[in-house]
Amino acid sequence: MKKLSVLFIFALLFIACTETTNSKTASTELTEEEKTDKSNIKKIFDSALLHGKSYEWLRDLTSNIGGRMSGSPEAAMAVKWGEKVMKEVGLDSVWLQPAIVPHWVRGEKEIAYYMSNGKKVDLAVAALGSSIATPKNGITAEVIEVKSIKEAEALGEKARGKIIFFNRPFDDTLINTFQAYGGCVGQRVFGAKAVGKFGALAVLVRSMTNRLDNYPHTGTMRYGDIPKSEYIPTAALSTVAAENLSNQLKKDPALKVYFKQRCENLPKEKSFNVIGEIKGSENPEKIIVVGGHLDSWDLGDGAHDDGTGIVQALEVLHIFKINNIKPKNTIRVVFFMDEEQGSGGATAYADAAKLSNENHLGGLESDAGGHTPRGFTIDANAGNQKLLKSWKKLLAPYGLHDIEKGGSGADISPLKAEQTTLVGYRPDSQRYFDYHHAATDTFDKVNKRELELGSASMASMIYLMDKYLENPDSVKQ
Amino acid sequence: MKKLSVLFIFALLFIACTETTNSKTASTELTEEEKTDKSNIKKIFDSALLHGKSYEWLRDLTSNIGGRMSGSPEAAMAVKWGEKVMKEVGLDSVWLQPAIVPHWVRGEKEIAYYMSNGKKVDLAVAALGSSIATPKNGITAEVIEVKSIKEAEALGEKARGKIIFFNRPFDDTLINTFQAYGGCVGQRVFGAKAVGKFGALAVLVRSMTNRLDNYPHTGTMRYGDIPKSEYIPTAALSTVAAENLSNQLKKDPALKVYFKQRCENLPKEKSFNVIGEIKGSENPEKIIVVGGHLDSWDLGDGAHDDGTGIVQALEVLHIFKINNIKPKNTIRVVFFMDEEQGSGGATAYADAAKLSNENHLGGLESDAGGHTPRGFTIDANAGNQKLLKSWKKLLAPYGLHDIEKGGSGADISPLKAEQTTLVGYRPDSQRYFDYHHAATDTFDKVNKRELELGSASMASMIYLMDKYLENPDSVKQ
Repeated sequence: MKKLSVLFIFALLFIACTETTNSKTASTELTEEEKTDKSNIKKIFDSALLHGKSYEWLRDLTSNIGGRMSGSPEAAMAVKWGEKVMKEVGLDSVWLQPAIVPHWVRGEKEIAYYMSNGKKVDLAVAALGSSIATPKNGITAEVIEVKSIKEAEALGEKARGKIIFFNRPFDDTLINTFQAYGGCVGQRVFGAKAVGKFGALAVLVRSMTNRLDNYPHTGTMRYGDIPKSEYIPTAALSTVAAENLSNQLKKDPALKVYFKQRCENLPKEKSFNVIGEIKGSENPEKIIVVGGHLDSWDLGDGAHDDGTGIVQALEVLHIFKINNIKPKNTIRVVFFMDEEQGSGGATAYADAAKLSNENHLGGLESDAGGHTPRGFTIDANAGNQKLLKSWKKLLAPYGLHDIEKGGSGADISPLKAEQTTLVGYRPDSQRYFDYHHAATDTFDKVNKRELELGSASMASMIYLMDKYLENPDSVKQ
Repeated sequence: MKKLSVLFIFALLFIACTETTNSKTASTELTEEEKTDKSNIKKIFDSALLHGKSYEWLRDLTSNIGGRMSGSPEAAMAVKWGEKVMKEVGLDSVWLQPAIVPHWVRGEKEIAYYMSNGKKVDLAVAALGSSIATPKNGITAEVIEVKSIKEAEALGEKARGKIIFFNRPFDDTLINTFQAYGGCVGQRVFGAKAVGKFGALAVLVRSMTNRLDNYPHTGTMRYGDIPKSEYIPTAALSTVAAENLSNQLKKDPALKVYFKQRCENLPKEKSFNVIGEIKGSENPEKIIVVGGHLDSWDLGDGAHDDGTGIVQALEVLHIFKINNIKPKNTIRVVFFMDEEQGSGGATAYADAAKLSNENHLGGLESDAGGHTPRGFTIDANAGNQKLLKSWKKLLAPYGLHDIEKGGSGADISPLKAEQTTLVGYRPDSQRYFDYHHAATDTFDKVNKRELELGSASMASMIYLMDKYLENPDSVKQ
């Protein structure tokens, strides 16, 4: 069967001939300066993949501290941890910046169920951050299912004495899952506010995920400016529980659900942003900030949200150090506290920057998970948008094709100004909401290479911003 | 703290404003025909994400049959399964095409260890497909570590009576992990052939993966045309075992390893490709084939390799059916048998096509895992390469940016001819070799959306190939 063998060997060798994506930049199209950049970006990627520390930092943070909600003892431990790892990288300076943050505690495990043919059917449930508790013995009430705030508002007095169940699912046809999240998260944030005034007893919300599983996804909610008398408790149901409840309500519209949670809003706490920097060699007064958020929710270990973001941000400075890249401008890493519950850290940072009249040339945030790199979104003036898009030819060989106008991130966006270029790192979004705010957001969901490629993508972006942001005209378009 | 709240609400809403990647095609740049294509491609993606069956087919195949090596009872079950699911899709015809395939069996669990300070240190090991067994009681021998076939060839008589340990790791700096595989797999395939002639007793090979873990990755090997007397047994070590052994050899170069495996090459078996098609409405004699391979290795369930490929290929035809897309040409799905061990199915298919003088307009293969879509590689003449690259503007909104010259796949490449356009589907490669040929290649590693986006990517490619392949000039470049 010689023929078989020849074909088979051909097939085996064949795989080595499949086109690679990392040698696509035709050198002939590059200027001398861009060839230097290409070579430096290659060094950045090589060192992230060979000498990166982000994966072990993340393992340490997630397994030794785990979930770290604003105001919690774990968040305080994470601050100390952040200070320690920044010092280990050998930055020029490392400090803590005070921030005032909420302190909400989940309390004992939440309970929700209904009775069907004499059997208790549990609904997987988790309180939403900032929510009040139910009465001590819980609530038993009929349920009205709605798909939107508008539909809930239209209930009026019909809502009285009822549990309102927001069940709008993610639109699975949206390729970018953040869009699907954006189209649903209003239910979670404002659902309770919308129906408290009608005398509804509680709100249950379908979890914010494309995935059908039995893990509730927590997240914050807001009562806004309604009177305290209208505050009602609210919690997330897993998507499986939401589907189950919805099906049961079709069979039995008078179905009663029991719901109990004992969460509590405690007095605000003092916490900290953790900050470190490498001083700029030419313009130490000009700052480019790179960061993510240190706090997380409590159900999982805050691996993708946003452990990956902070270890990637610190890795940027680590890569600069080990490659002896001396930035012209000051490169500052910030582990922001309290992105999830009140943006206390972002506020403290922006306020301090204003007070000190700091000059922020740019910022880059990673808060969209640690999956395989796809690109960046740019919030900048037209000239700088054009400048950043011109780097596509340098970045596309690393899978960074999507470099487009868009938002940056919740923690750096308060720095927005005409001359400040804010950038969001955008990894692939398909798996992100599988884990987001759920018990499944754990270290094992993070792939080492994907994480490191993200660090290198961010370091390359900071390298280019540092080099070109002041002098966009020097780049050939 | 009104300020906090305002900032925070801004941050929450902000996420909904991040740029999406699925509305990037500027309609103004499209011809009328391309607008039709854009709309049809949107329908294809919507139906894959909302009504796709690939994920449930894959769950069924992997959990009810699992690993399915060429010639095994499980492979025979998989043939029946393939025929059943193809019939359920309602294709115009479904049939089995005979193929002769190897039948290699692993036998009892392999054993490898060394003694250190009186304690046995196990090395995770798995026989390579086609390898012979060790003697019944195993082998105990000193070990020589090498990094390449060349280095092994240079050993000459030094290899006699030794176990040769090939330990060249993947080059982690290669962004496309298939390139790293291509740079190492020669050790696995030809390692035993290289040193059998010197009287080496066995070959152990570092597993083909970037990942450091304790799962050995099997795969095929070849003795080629060496005399049977020079055949020696060969197996893969997990990367953890390889690192461990390498470190131990540095301390103790005279270290002896015990190695035993009882695998066996049985007589070849008759098996089948499973084939189904939708007849072309205009040119039924012209065929576009889409496929993957039905067989797998035995350690895992063959989920990413290549369960995802076959369910995606069938989903292409399912999407055509449910959207009432009537192809001009015949669209044929093939579940190829025996990609892993001998390409028996690919040979049978190509031979039959030649015998019947079939006209293959094109082919598309999915055999690189079920991860998030990145693009396609094209093996075609210059005109058709240009044609396919011109579809980037339609496909990029779905993350399909990498549409470049390159190989197609082992099963369809024998169909290569001047006018035949062969295409390989290229999902993201970062995680693929974590699972490839290992016990970890199981259903839970597959993400539903990533799988479905791949099916839709492939269906869109087939839609465009069917529409334009004959008349490239009709597409505005």
